[in-house]
Amino acid sequence: MQYESLSKEEIKKSLSAEKKRYDAILKEKLSLDMSRGKPAAEQLDLAMPLLSVLSENTKFPKGPDYRNYGLQDGIPELKNLFGELFGVPSDYVYVAGNSSLNLMYDMISDAMLTGVLGSTPWCRAEGKVKFLCPVPGYDRHFNICEKLGIEMISVPMNEAGPDMNVVEDLVSNDPLIKGIWCVPRFSNPSGVTYSAETVSRLAKMKTAAPDFRIYYDNSYFVHTLYEDAPELVNIFDIAKEAGTEDRIYMFSSTSKITFAGGGIAVLIASPKNMASVKEKMGWKTIGFNKIWQYAHYLYLESVSKIKSIMKAQAELIRPKFEIVLDALERDFGDTDLVSWNAPKGGYFICLKCPNGTAKRIWTLCKKAGLTITPAGASHPLHIDDTDSYLRIAPTYPSCEDLKKATSVLMTVVKIAVLESLSK
Amino acid sequence: MQYESLSKEEIKKSLSAEKKRYDAILKEKLSLDMSRGKPAAEQLDLAMPLLSVLSENTKFPKGPDYRNYGLQDGIPELKNLFGELFGVPSDYVYVAGNSSLNLMYDMISDAMLTGVLGSTPWCRAEGKVKFLCPVPGYDRHFNICEKLGIEMISVPMNEAGPDMNVVEDLVSNDPLIKGIWCVPRFSNPSGVTYSAETVSRLAKMKTAAPDFRIYYDNSYFVHTLYEDAPELVNIFDIAKEAGTEDRIYMFSSTSKITFAGGGIAVLIASPKNMASVKEKMGWKTIGFNKIWQYAHYLYLESVSKIKSIMKAQAELIRPKFEIVLDALERDFGDTDLVSWNAPKGGYFICLKCPNGTAKRIWTLCKKAGLTITPAGASHPLHIDDTDSYLRIAPTYPSCEDLKKATSVLMTVVKIAVLESLSK
Repeated sequence: MQYESLSKEEIKKSLSAEKKRYDAILKEKLSLDMSRGKPAAEQLDLAMPLLSVLSENTKFPKGPDYRNYGLQDGIPELKNLFGELFGVPSDYVYVAGNSSLNLMYDMISDAMLTGVLGSTPWCRAEGKVKFLCPVPGYDRHFNICEKLGIEMISVPMNEAGPDMNVVEDLVSNDPLIKGIWCVPRFSNPSGVTYSAETVSRLAKMKTAAPDFRIYYDNSYFVHTLYEDAPELVNIFDIAKEAGTEDRIYMFSSTSKITFAGGGIAVLIASPKNMASVKEKMGWKTIGFNKIWQYAHYLYLESVSKIKSIMKAQAELIRPKFEIVLDALERDFGDTDLVSWNAPKGGYFICLKCPNGTAKRIWTLCKKAGLTITPAGASHPLHIDDTDSYLRIAPTYPSCEDLKKATSVLMTVVKIAVLESLSK
Repeated sequence: MQYESLSKEEIKKSLSAEKKRYDAILKEKLSLDMSRGKPAAEQLDLAMPLLSVLSENTKFPKGPDYRNYGLQDGIPELKNLFGELFGVPSDYVYVAGNSSLNLMYDMISDAMLTGVLGSTPWCRAEGKVKFLCPVPGYDRHFNICEKLGIEMISVPMNEAGPDMNVVEDLVSNDPLIKGIWCVPRFSNPSGVTYSAETVSRLAKMKTAAPDFRIYYDNSYFVHTLYEDAPELVNIFDIAKEAGTEDRIYMFSSTSKITFAGGGIAVLIASPKNMASVKEKMGWKTIGFNKIWQYAHYLYLESVSKIKSIMKAQAELIRPKFEIVLDALERDFGDTDLVSWNAPKGGYFICLKCPNGTAKRIWTLCKKAGLTITPAGASHPLHIDDTDSYLRIAPTYPSCEDLKKATSVLMTVVKIAVLESLSK
């Protein structure tokens, strides 16, 4: 429907029709969830062979006993495998526990308490430390800043990544800006893959803070849904040439390759950073679970096996994205009032609705038994001044539930659009 | 030998004989290690069935999918099991990743950055935060304080635990004293189990700091070597009655029950602390590896199974302790110049040599190809003013290697004792 050209009478009529539909939905007492980027059970089923690769007769490699303390930075097999996957030498790879978020938190809390490569601890900086937060972005990233007292400066996302003119201007002038959050491939939630130019400018930009760091959350690096998904250039290649590779902490995990919360997390960093990471992580732990690391190695085997796993994952996820995207196209393809990304990978669809409607949509969904990520979640401090962004996570529900959920969502968005037009 | 009654001539003669023995050892070019509290391969072999409890056909319990995100505080099966083991309700139990040291670090770094139950962040305290450190103690505990800029105040250990007169006097007067390190059963390295009175006084003492915390590292809770090992009373029972249970963080792990660095770590805390722990851990992670937790549950089964595992562990470890203890008794049973504990459990023997000899002993061992924990390691900042304490870890080497290592150690200690007598 071309909502923009509706007459007042038509708006009233349509709104009344949609509200009737909504009232009928209410009676169904639904309980549906498209709020978090969780894999569905069928995706997890794919990884079940991982549970059989170890047994009582497992022969571990010769050398350090993986069943004992040691090898803080992980088993060499996985250092090599992730090095190959991300295009870095294996000694850039730190293989850790199950949570890349935890590694991100560690890198920031360590910097707060003890600085970065000898810099003043950020908690003692002369003024409040600030981070750049491309918006819309990932709520758990912003939450770390909020809880650790880091001021967040929003930077708009465009189709090539964060607006680099804004980023460069800010970081070159303010030494209290110590970091930027990035999800460079299939960004959460906008689905954007950073362009080669964006990555290059991130690597090469001048920063007023010598201890500036890019928190490069490459969680969806291999999470493509379509063959023609845009590639991400290797930031380490560019940074090495520019002499800036110490500014990058790259993170990833297998949470959406093997088991969610039961995978293996990695940190990728320059040799200088790595030495410091090993030292500081060594204050906290003697090392991570190498047996689970080795099980992952036995299951993941090689880069090509990882890619074939991700193809099988895509087969399961793609139809779900298409349920939502097809409905959006059908119901809002003719209007500019509602827009969205059609991501080539990742876990999210980002929906932009008319200003001032996102909270209303969330509330109406909630009332109808459909949980979606709270409006504002993709913005620092949960404040979306436009009140227009919503994040849709289609992976977790079954296709049947998702169809139902999408139909509820469409009705609710229509109501919100029509309401905003009738104001 | 009764070293105290030797004449100058006898000392000279004995020293010369021991040095000849030492020179012969040098020629053997040994490479032996009794430095760290690591389990031996045979101990790890005991846990190999753990690797077979999961398989492709594993049926996980109904309810939340253990293969997916969720249950930040761990699976209910292990919360129940550890609750029963430690004598606390299961909602006091937070089941985490593989490292209890990491949990300890988290509790302290969180307090530094964001305070404790609403208190001022310790990094903003008016003055340097201080911890009480019973000595000899665990080097990794003290290292956390050192790295996070926490001042350490040494408190002497006696046979019932830390000297509680000293502890009470200090904590009741100085609000900057925010914590005390405790290893209450089979203390590292002194082997002491805290007496009921010590535990009771820890629970009941007045503290000037309202946000004072006991870091109660109960790593060796079930690690008994002999049936008549002293029991540890339940600090939570006493603290609950005294209204002080918020002051205790108890830690443990299965690193020395299943796999070292491949086990499951737990934090045990009061409901009020637990709510805060869940909130703050939630900034870092969506949760820990529940699949590995479930594998542990399937293997560990019950408290009685854990106890039978620890009996089997003791069968392997006890002869090793006895190799060292028998040699000490044989060579130094008649003198007061060298003393040691004969622990009923845990991983260490603490050796007290004449003042001013510990570094010398370490150096002579090193030169002979025997690695022992560096002198001073059991003291804050590695400074043992008496230069007399050494930590012996007998578990890791084979019995054959351990016999050799012990014989080297005996020769070296004799040299150091005789040298100190000839000064």
